[in-house]
Amino acid sequence: MSVGITIAVDAMSGDDGPQVVVPAVFAYLEKLQSNDASQASPAASCQSKAFNIILVGKQVELEALLHSYPENPSISIVHAETVVSMDDRPSRVLRSKQDSSMAVALQLVKSGQAQACVSSGNTGALMLLGRSILGTFPGIDRPAITKMFPSQGGGCFVLDLGANVDSSAEHLLQFAIMGQVLAKITKGVENPRVALLNVGGESIKGNEQVRLAASLIEESEALNYIGFAEGGDIFRSYADVIVCDGFVGNVALKSAEGAAKILLSGIKDFFKESWYRKLLGRLMLPLLAKTLKQLDPDTHNGAIFLGLQGVLVKSHGHANAKSFEQAVDLAYKEAEANLPELINSELEKVLL
Amino acid sequence: MSVGITIAVDAMSGDDGPQVVVPAVFAYLEKLQSNDASQASPAASCQSKAFNIILVGKQVELEALLHSYPENPSISIVHAETVVSMDDRPSRVLRSKQDSSMAVALQLVKSGQAQACVSSGNTGALMLLGRSILGTFPGIDRPAITKMFPSQGGGCFVLDLGANVDSSAEHLLQFAIMGQVLAKITKGVENPRVALLNVGGESIKGNEQVRLAASLIEESEALNYIGFAEGGDIFRSYADVIVCDGFVGNVALKSAEGAAKILLSGIKDFFKESWYRKLLGRLMLPLLAKTLKQLDPDTHNGAIFLGLQGVLVKSHGHANAKSFEQAVDLAYKEAEANLPELINSELEKVLL
Repeated sequence: MSVGITIAVDAMSGDDGPQVVVPAVFAYLEKLQSNDASQASPAASCQSKAFNIILVGKQVELEALLHSYPENPSISIVHAETVVSMDDRPSRVLRSKQDSSMAVALQLVKSGQAQACVSSGNTGALMLLGRSILGTFPGIDRPAITKMFPSQGGGCFVLDLGANVDSSAEHLLQFAIMGQVLAKITKGVENPRVALLNVGGESIKGNEQVRLAASLIEESEALNYIGFAEGGDIFRSYADVIVCDGFVGNVALKSAEGAAKILLSGIKDFFKESWYRKLLGRLMLPLLAKTLKQLDPDTHNGAIFLGLQGVLVKSHGHANAKSFEQAVDLAYKEAEANLPELINSELEKVLL
Repeated sequence: MSVGITIAVDAMSGDDGPQVVVPAVFAYLEKLQSNDASQASPAASCQSKAFNIILVGKQVELEALLHSYPENPSISIVHAETVVSMDDRPSRVLRSKQDSSMAVALQLVKSGQAQACVSSGNTGALMLLGRSILGTFPGIDRPAITKMFPSQGGGCFVLDLGANVDSSAEHLLQFAIMGQVLAKITKGVENPRVALLNVGGESIKGNEQVRLAASLIEESEALNYIGFAEGGDIFRSYADVIVCDGFVGNVALKSAEGAAKILLSGIKDFFKESWYRKLLGRLMLPLLAKTLKQLDPDTHNGAIFLGLQGVLVKSHGHANAKSFEQAVDLAYKEAEANLPELINSELEKVLL
């Protein structure tokens, strides 16, 4: 059921702005519509009509790019005068860039004209604008960014991944609660296991912030707290949710992705080294493609802003069109599931 | 040239203590001695005589284990009454466990009876004991743990990896200087590039600690500071040294290892799924073994304590015998190169 889902896409942000966003959006729509056509049921064809994308950004620039594509009634443009750059100080953006593609896209969600927003822009600015325009749920001070990391037997949500670089113990407690709700809803686990990221499993380890957070989280009756986790536990089926400061989480995410990339490229290089290996590669790589793709960080582009009263998905700033599509797809699925509403009603139970 | 190198091995620490350490030490000696024998030169055979290992720990327990091996004159035991456990509070260890295998092994380095110490014990305790027994170099407050991460085109030293969980900006500056010296010596780079780990490349990003450290490091004329690095830059040929707080570095290391492990096991599982894949696996895996091994975290066990007046190598607590061997080998190479002396003389140039 996806009646009436519209996604507002910040078309100007990210390293390559509309050059990446526009082809990604067309490719995504085409995939969605061909899926519907292949299903060939009246419901499915109705479904495709109800999905729309609003490109938010400089009208002239976007129109020029759209000219090279066939006309598509599902795509429209909303003009925004300015763009948030990667160097913009978030607090300045809040004061002076309310006419940016990022802010206007968020306003479309706030006003109900769109059900989700996708942006690959400046994370700090997105966090401040998201919080001020959409608002957070009662009991949540600051939104957190999260992603499901692949793990043996399930997947683990890690938060925060970079929205908050100096999280207090109270914020870590709120992240734990939001993460638990998200895991419950999306993984279907009744009592998700929550752990706190640390440098070792022993209770005496870690810094002041982590020890304080541990005692707060431990006291909360709403949480199934299982203790400290280490970096490597993210990829084992150790916890459903791992909570950490945004600085630490961001480094964990990017290091893990970096390690995965060097491994994948090492394997690809291996198949180039001799004619025998090239031959093996021809046999192997098509088979191995699915496994490698599952483990390729580019396949999993798109992080969730949790705690906001609306769907907001952050794409990598350097995403290519293929990987930007993933972020749009994530936003689509969140909006379809009405995730913010579900989280809000779960939070009410937990926080009361 | 390895005349007269003796390594003091803390035989009781780590998850499996002497059950892992003793077989590892025998396997390492055997490899070293068979290398010498195959070279069959008088110098080489002399070399094997000059390499010794002192197992430090409970005499009775170690003797019992040694009984199942052929007598080896290169191995001796030094008794230590107690063991530092993973739960021991480091400050308590400093006061009351000077008779532990960890402390006694370090004393052997201090007194000159050994040229290096290897332990897989409690990192915090090892850091405090190492600092108090061996001492740090002038100008260095706290030792840092580092490791070379594999990267496309060179390898990158990241520090600190967990010795200091609340590093000040001044400590990060010292880590930068030590890292630069290490990279210069071991990588043979004249002017190693030093970067500071952050959540983004822009100067406005990050927390207070990182911004303070950036301005300190920028001011230092001795350093070739190239700016901020992100987690993924560890694995690109972006910098020779990346500096960070020990909490963050530890999480980066373990997350990257976790990601590599899940990828490697994904690939191994792939070759088990059908008879055709099993057949391909038979052709492929022996060829691929070298590539996979290079990228397998277990191959790179052993981290360097930098800034101490002596060689100290930390092994993973859960290392198996094969990977404990790697840590012993690293200690051997550092002692052979006389790394602490080289670092000291470079530090004198930089700090004066």
